[in-house]
Amino acid sequence: MRTGLWVAVVGGCLSGLFASTPFGARADEGLWTFNHFPSAKVQETYGFEPTAQWLDHLRLASLRLPRGCSAAFVSPTGLVQTNHHCTRDCLQQLSSPTNNLVQDGFYAAKPEDEVKCPDVEANQLVGITDVTPQVREAVAGREGQDYGRALREVLAKLQRDRAGGDEAIRCDVVELYRGSVYDVYKYRRYQDVRLVFSPEEDIAFFGGDPDNFEFPRYDLDVAFLRVYDEHGAPLNTQANYFAYAPRDAQEGDLVFTSGNPGTTERLDTVAELEYDRDVVLPECLVYLAELRGLLLQFSAEGAEHARVAFAKLFAVENAYKARLGQFRALVNPGLIDSRRRAENELRAKVAADPQFQQRFGDPWAAIAQAVSHYRAVADRMEVVEEGRGPQSDLFAYARLLVRAAEQRQLPDIRRFQEFTEAGFPFTRQRLLANAPISNDLEKLLLRAWLVQLRRVLGPDDPLVRDVLGAQTAEKMASDLVDGTRLADPNERKRLLMGGIEAIKNSHDPLIRFAQEVDKQALAIRRDVEVNVEAVERRNAGVIAQVVFAAKGTGAYPDATFSPRVSYGTVKGYDENGRHVRYYTTMGEAYGRATGAEPLALPRSWLRARSDVDFSRKLNIVSTNDIVRGNSGSPVVNTDGQVVGMIFDGNSQSLGGDFGFDDNSNRAVWVSVGAVKEALTKIYGTTRLNRELGI
Amino acid sequence: MRTGLWVAVVGGCLSGLFASTPFGARADEGLWTFNHFPSAKVQETYGFEPTAQWLDHLRLASLRLPRGCSAAFVSPTGLVQTNHHCTRDCLQQLSSPTNNLVQDGFYAAKPEDEVKCPDVEANQLVGITDVTPQVREAVAGREGQDYGRALREVLAKLQRDRAGGDEAIRCDVVELYRGSVYDVYKYRRYQDVRLVFSPEEDIAFFGGDPDNFEFPRYDLDVAFLRVYDEHGAPLNTQANYFAYAPRDAQEGDLVFTSGNPGTTERLDTVAELEYDRDVVLPECLVYLAELRGLLLQFSAEGAEHARVAFAKLFAVENAYKARLGQFRALVNPGLIDSRRRAENELRAKVAADPQFQQRFGDPWAAIAQAVSHYRAVADRMEVVEEGRGPQSDLFAYARLLVRAAEQRQLPDIRRFQEFTEAGFPFTRQRLLANAPISNDLEKLLLRAWLVQLRRVLGPDDPLVRDVLGAQTAEKMASDLVDGTRLADPNERKRLLMGGIEAIKNSHDPLIRFAQEVDKQALAIRRDVEVNVEAVERRNAGVIAQVVFAAKGTGAYPDATFSPRVSYGTVKGYDENGRHVRYYTTMGEAYGRATGAEPLALPRSWLRARSDVDFSRKLNIVSTNDIVRGNSGSPVVNTDGQVVGMIFDGNSQSLGGDFGFDDNSNRAVWVSVGAVKEALTKIYGTTRLNRELGI
Repeated sequence: MRTGLWVAVVGGCLSGLFASTPFGARADEGLWTFNHFPSAKVQETYGFEPTAQWLDHLRLASLRLPRGCSAAFVSPTGLVQTNHHCTRDCLQQLSSPTNNLVQDGFYAAKPEDEVKCPDVEANQLVGITDVTPQVREAVAGREGQDYGRALREVLAKLQRDRAGGDEAIRCDVVELYRGSVYDVYKYRRYQDVRLVFSPEEDIAFFGGDPDNFEFPRYDLDVAFLRVYDEHGAPLNTQANYFAYAPRDAQEGDLVFTSGNPGTTERLDTVAELEYDRDVVLPECLVYLAELRGLLLQFSAEGAEHARVAFAKLFAVENAYKARLGQFRALVNPGLIDSRRRAENELRAKVAADPQFQQRFGDPWAAIAQAVSHYRAVADRMEVVEEGRGPQSDLFAYARLLVRAAEQRQLPDIRRFQEFTEAGFPFTRQRLLANAPISNDLEKLLLRAWLVQLRRVLGPDDPLVRDVLGAQTAEKMASDLVDGTRLADPNERKRLLMGGIEAIKNSHDPLIRFAQEVDKQALAIRRDVEVNVEAVERRNAGVIAQVVFAAKGTGAYPDATFSPRVSYGTVKGYDENGRHVRYYTTMGEAYGRATGAEPLALPRSWLRARSDVDFSRKLNIVSTNDIVRGNSGSPVVNTDGQVVGMIFDGNSQSLGGDFGFDDNSNRAVWVSVGAVKEALTKIYGTTRLNRELGI
Repeated sequence: MRTGLWVAVVGGCLSGLFASTPFGARADEGLWTFNHFPSAKVQETYGFEPTAQWLDHLRLASLRLPRGCSAAFVSPTGLVQTNHHCTRDCLQQLSSPTNNLVQDGFYAAKPEDEVKCPDVEANQLVGITDVTPQVREAVAGREGQDYGRALREVLAKLQRDRAGGDEAIRCDVVELYRGSVYDVYKYRRYQDVRLVFSPEEDIAFFGGDPDNFEFPRYDLDVAFLRVYDEHGAPLNTQANYFAYAPRDAQEGDLVFTSGNPGTTERLDTVAELEYDRDVVLPECLVYLAELRGLLLQFSAEGAEHARVAFAKLFAVENAYKARLGQFRALVNPGLIDSRRRAENELRAKVAADPQFQQRFGDPWAAIAQAVSHYRAVADRMEVVEEGRGPQSDLFAYARLLVRAAEQRQLPDIRRFQEFTEAGFPFTRQRLLANAPISNDLEKLLLRAWLVQLRRVLGPDDPLVRDVLGAQTAEKMASDLVDGTRLADPNERKRLLMGGIEAIKNSHDPLIRFAQEVDKQALAIRRDVEVNVEAVERRNAGVIAQVVFAAKGTGAYPDATFSPRVSYGTVKGYDENGRHVRYYTTMGEAYGRATGAEPLALPRSWLRARSDVDFSRKLNIVSTNDIVRGNSGSPVVNTDGQVVGMIFDGNSQSLGGDFGFDDNSNRAVWVSVGAVKEALTKIYGTTRLNRELGI
């Protein structure tokens, strides 16, 4: 189940991340951790065994972009390859009314032209340590509220202790197999990430929203960034980067992806899945659909509105289509029915064995109870806190400032994750980033949220009456945006540094408004943490133990937006009785273009038409098991060379949250051959090409 | 199941109609026909027996407004009472940038000030004739396509023959009990309907969208119209009108409503309900949510945009909330589970009896097959034809003109319903109405539909490529709206009168565009008629016969937007352990007002505050079984006097499409006491008050 909190990490309905029955995984299924990769199975199936050294290289040349993407080093001097759509926020932040980098692309012809992305961070996984015993000890014998608190405290403590006070290190305790295993993931954190190259939106996202999550596909969804070290020099990545493969991938090739799949629910109970199907996903869909309508009309009002709303509109449309795919997967009766059969089998095993019964109790019933509790509070939780919450950046700043002031007075172990010593550098980067604000867009988003708040809670709800008083949503949003000074990063810095006193003394209307809202938000968040989250975690952990006891190990955990490896083969598939070839070509993109959005090729492509090798593979599909968050993941051949980068999954892959079907689930990637072709024949990015060795 | 065609009558997702297990109905459940009203049961339960004469009066004093509402005569000179929201289209059509009748209300102080509503028609049910034998004979022994055609032809023939060529008479063959019974409903048709009085939107819809489909409620959702006869004089309704009751309704009073419930699916099979739950309703919801977002932002662009989009936005928000209530009713597992048990019981009865088996076969399987066929074509059907089709008025004109030209060349019996001699006067009234057009709104709606079309069918679909060519949706919509002359009723008249030649020779870009779209639309509509509609009708009829054979009669048919009677008692209910009182007062409306939309009272109310009797009942609830389409239905006491008019149902009533629960389903109405109080103390509508005898 996706409660507000589970999704808080990835942004609620509007998860910016891209998108399988895990015990006894079949075929190429699996979102494997680096420390438990099934090398022997791969050897057995494919005749190639990834060694520990091979896997280490894969891990260290890969990156996690904590706002929801993956990436990879592709040169010895810190050059990073990821998707264009993973850099869209940065492109938008660096744009201005007269210089639209999203639309027109960007190329730093000289090293000094590389420009810092205001709030991009990159994480490199440098170590994994099992801390399950410490966690077990800390929560032993505890129940309910007490269990939740003890768990939160031990996780915060472990994260802080392992990082050792070094802000360049980030330690996350990753909960695997729904709480059966706790590992500390230690990342090297890079906060100076600069933009090197990106193509035009028209080719990065050729086909637009109608093509999103579809295949065949024709997108050059690629961008290059560079990580700089603490001295402001390009990072030395001599030891860990992927060279570009000299030849394109062919059907049947074994390929690996290393990336950060966001969240999956392959271990969820039937009660949780039904709740997703009946409540969470439909509510998300209508929320996103309305937001899309608002943003589409806002964008139709003029070029500048279209420009400032671009990244948000993409995020909304992308999330909408992903949620729709998930919803369709869940209403397909086969899926939940098969999960119900498996669950009933396990429950029968426990019921039939007095020892099992004593040891495990009925975790399914406990989870169903938590779901039922959540059902009663979900609307309030999601509209006030996260899920269907406010999309305004200014409001987000105000809320972060208000919370940071309060939370950072508490002992580290009692804070919410994003305010702990381990989590705060990332929060701070976001808070202080010099990102442009559009007042018009902010007013729309704040107004829409106030309308949503009143609609969901009702006009007589005390919070609604407190917040809106005798004002219309329109006037209120307008006054707040016009009255606040939070668009200025210096003002945000002043309030952040000033702590609780600065917040108390602030007359900023948005700060006062956020305080009002936050009183309720925190109460509901605590309730959900204790009565839903903690119960689900604890009992999901018990179910995982039942599975281990009944079926043994050899499985992979649900995705947690932490580094994973998946393997697969380059392969077409059948759809409605028709075979879909495993690749598209650059020539086909030309053939499909109509000249009008979303099928317009950029001028650079039209100009270079006669130079381009039409037979070059543009996009390729493979059976790798990937989900949202894998965007930008390198696709690597057995020689450890990069052959592509994931940018999407086909529509069939959208059920990947709940299960994997290698007959039709496909990862969709940009072939590096097309990148090479475009950089040389279309973009003439000499300096970059040299660095990539092309 | 709601296929595109079933819902075409009431406008697809955007049904303008308001919103129960019919065999063996319990308590006050029932959408009874006038010719099979259970008077004996009412006598038994309540000690009052509605006589045939009493029912005739009820029928003849009641009206059907074919765009989706109900109404009643309330004076001897043709005065009609209905809901404000049922006249909203008329109010908007009669408004101008400087005179906003929706917002400010309207009162014709002198008889000559009464102004014609451009496209309002009113129907009075003057007779019911059973034609089941004729229909049975016509379709006997036919299957599939042949069955569908024969059925359509006999229905068209019966409608035409019964009307006898009199355009003031409209005959509809009403299919009851899903095809077990066919009755001809003969209506007296009135097309000269004028506006007399309406209050301000702020009190007609106090509480706005958040309060819609909720109780307690505080709305004066009332308007007065007048029917004029063929000589342009007020219609003489001396014989059939409802007098205003001298005293307000009290808890426990027996009350009747006479109105036109839109559609219910209380006889649908499990396969149909599941399809509604999994596909139809979610698709409608997201379609409507996006449309809401577009319209909300459009309205935020300025007062004039808000004015021209008002009626459409209300229709969208109203439909959205109704659909959401239906969806929530269906995902409640209790509902479908209980229907599945009942269905399995019936199927078992048939399976156990060789005679039954021979006679009935397996109609459930046949319907499931039709549902499955529809699933494959639904997206195309609904986006091209109806359901999630274009909302543009100009496009609707173009399509009607194109179709009228083609259809009216066919023999009457082969035409679609809306182009038969029986159905055409209503279509023509719509086509020729002098209703204002907002080009800005038209562009938005057309653009949104083109985007939707491309999104649903994909950018490579031949229709999408034909229609959009190398243009953006925005440019295309803009060119069509700027280029067409169809906003002029004279031009529409010219094209209508000119028939197929005028259409062929037209260079109007919207006519040419509609022709392009229509080629596909007609093909898909025919396919659905034959392979879905006809199969469902035929087999649903068989199921109804099984029910009759197994359980006997004494039931009421599903709603078909034709006149029905329901009885019930004035009564509060319990909700979340709290008792909800059966009425609200005018004083409570004052108490709740904040001064800001949606809780702003109009100036007229604020001015009259000290004169108003705060204890006057404003809105009242009763157990009458009503659904969408009952809006404006008179609520009548045992003396045949009107005590109120239905304007809504509570949120629990939204499951009324699928079943009725008298514990919590409530009809919500305006008490005539409040109407009297407002007309005398607030509005001073002397002439009207005299006519109403107050």
